[in-house]
Amino acid sequence: MITKPTLLLDKARCQKNIAKMVAKAQRHGLVLRPHFKTHQSLLVGSWFKEAGVKKATVSSVSMAQYFASEWDDITIAFPINILEIDAINELASKVQLQVLVESVEVAEYLNANMKHPIGYFIKVDVGAGRSGVQPENTVLIDQILESLSSSEALHFKGFLAHAGHTYKCRSNEEIESVHQQELEIMAKLKARYIAQYPELIISLGDTPSCSVSESFEGVDEMRAGNFVFYDLMQAQITSCSVDEVAVALACPIVAIHEDRNEMVVYGGGVHFSKDRMEDEELGTIYGKVAKPKGNTWEGLEEGMYVKRLSQEHGIIALPNHKKGQYKVGDCLMVLPVHSCMTADLMREYLVV
Amino acid sequence: MITKPTLLLDKARCQKNIAKMVAKAQRHGLVLRPHFKTHQSLLVGSWFKEAGVKKATVSSVSMAQYFASEWDDITIAFPINILEIDAINELASKVQLQVLVESVEVAEYLNANMKHPIGYFIKVDVGAGRSGVQPENTVLIDQILESLSSSEALHFKGFLAHAGHTYKCRSNEEIESVHQQELEIMAKLKARYIAQYPELIISLGDTPSCSVSESFEGVDEMRAGNFVFYDLMQAQITSCSVDEVAVALACPIVAIHEDRNEMVVYGGGVHFSKDRMEDEELGTIYGKVAKPKGNTWEGLEEGMYVKRLSQEHGIIALPNHKKGQYKVGDCLMVLPVHSCMTADLMREYLVV
Repeated sequence: MITKPTLLLDKARCQKNIAKMVAKAQRHGLVLRPHFKTHQSLLVGSWFKEAGVKKATVSSVSMAQYFASEWDDITIAFPINILEIDAINELASKVQLQVLVESVEVAEYLNANMKHPIGYFIKVDVGAGRSGVQPENTVLIDQILESLSSSEALHFKGFLAHAGHTYKCRSNEEIESVHQQELEIMAKLKARYIAQYPELIISLGDTPSCSVSESFEGVDEMRAGNFVFYDLMQAQITSCSVDEVAVALACPIVAIHEDRNEMVVYGGGVHFSKDRMEDEELGTIYGKVAKPKGNTWEGLEEGMYVKRLSQEHGIIALPNHKKGQYKVGDCLMVLPVHSCMTADLMREYLVV
Repeated sequence: MITKPTLLLDKARCQKNIAKMVAKAQRHGLVLRPHFKTHQSLLVGSWFKEAGVKKATVSSVSMAQYFASEWDDITIAFPINILEIDAINELASKVQLQVLVESVEVAEYLNANMKHPIGYFIKVDVGAGRSGVQPENTVLIDQILESLSSSEALHFKGFLAHAGHTYKCRSNEEIESVHQQELEIMAKLKARYIAQYPELIISLGDTPSCSVSESFEGVDEMRAGNFVFYDLMQAQITSCSVDEVAVALACPIVAIHEDRNEMVVYGGGVHFSKDRMEDEELGTIYGKVAKPKGNTWEGLEEGMYVKRLSQEHGIIALPNHKKGQYKVGDCLMVLPVHSCMTADLMREYLVV
């Protein structure tokens, strides 16, 4: 029985999301190396294994340590944190590990300090402006490759990008446009370096592009992660439909204020995270209430959404047509704005 | 040695914040029942004990269970979640417990289900619009009191309010104005019910009012919590100075992009939370970089702040005058926008 905020995971929906992405990767001859930062769960990882996936992406050394018990090929898709060199060495002694490099300084540090074989990607900034080398800066790319060319431990794997700017898109056409720019950038790099490094691969990863596009010319690997659960933000970006969202936060109603068209639930910023979005109709929202169906949900309750959050409280909009239908102690199922953040906070799932 | 995002707690600053609030409570003859949701730590709780504090406030049943090992008088300042009745009964059998009631429905539920003595406050909405009865709705207050008047387990303790709308204030004058309205509202309730309940108390709690005001006429108890650490938001509200902020997140630098005046740190939404604020000069920010001093910090690095956050990445503004001064592997100390959320995410402190 649910007594406090509980993250429900709809296994059927989740496995359908996995199967769809696995099929797309196969259709395009891509290796699927899903990002596990969204679910951070060995159980969900095992569903990927059942679907034939053998490689994983994570975003921290800690996450790599967690998954290393069951996964033997892991890419840490984050600018390498040299302070964790001991843990990285230990991981590299156990599993096939890949890391990201974007400066000569870090390349030289790794060269001097890695005691075990490790693969490295050069991270390319394809327009998101977060991390990576500028793709036209081939001088820097050459310097990095040169500084590691005689390294015994470090092996060049290829170029890796994350088109995080697709998160600003609001239609399939916009996503496709960003994705095509990324493909062009990566194709140029591949053309320039493939003769020297015939085994180099191109690895891409954002959930919007991987969900929407059917064009992966020149790409070898996809690393999307959020698609495993999706969320309201991805539905707004047009990566998915609301009914593909596979997680919902069950929140007990603790107070009803019909006079101001609001209810209070136990479920706040420490459960949902403070990630929010601007909904065209509703304004700023932190979640939307789904319609219960059996022990899971389907569709949305019209006009019911999370208006405000404090640490433990969520304020739910209660439209006139829903007044009188709830009592204190009922649980609402709320779809999160950003499932990665909600899952990170909740740390466990109730599989339904 | 710090190798990944680590929440530094400056013990001297924290104990100074505690001592200041203890002195204020004494000066005004108030019981200090600090809110522990900010720190959620038995260690920090022990510093309150050393300062003579004997009572605690928490915001969930889970938090009450955690603190019950060392604290025997706890108020759960959250609309009671009746689904946790078993845990509440167990707690009430061990410690002196107080809960909040704001409807007849919940009062009757407690009356039927509480097996151990428990105190209750009627939660009053003094203008924050989150939870509580409207103070002019004495019909409802009378109904709640009446429904519990013959209860063996439930004992009326008084009226409790949280003027959360002081968080919108940006000067001491604005805070004082909200606080005075709250005092008037609570004074009226006290006057109306004191004859019937001579032991009733008035309990107030927001950090801005408790930090700024010297007027607590008619108040019996203060429950502020955030003041133990403070944060950038409280500094903006004018509750504190930046140098009273007692926590900072140490974040390793993982990439430097001088061309775009930015650095990337390991330290993202899963460490800071996505709580943000609008700074008058800088626009939207998620944290500000403090100047290192010994193993702690003092003052701010001019123009250095957290511009954007993703799950594990923080993007730091690097002004021209600071270029060339940092290298990958250095740690920045970043003051959080909202210390309650950051502490909840980090779950442990490095005391400095």
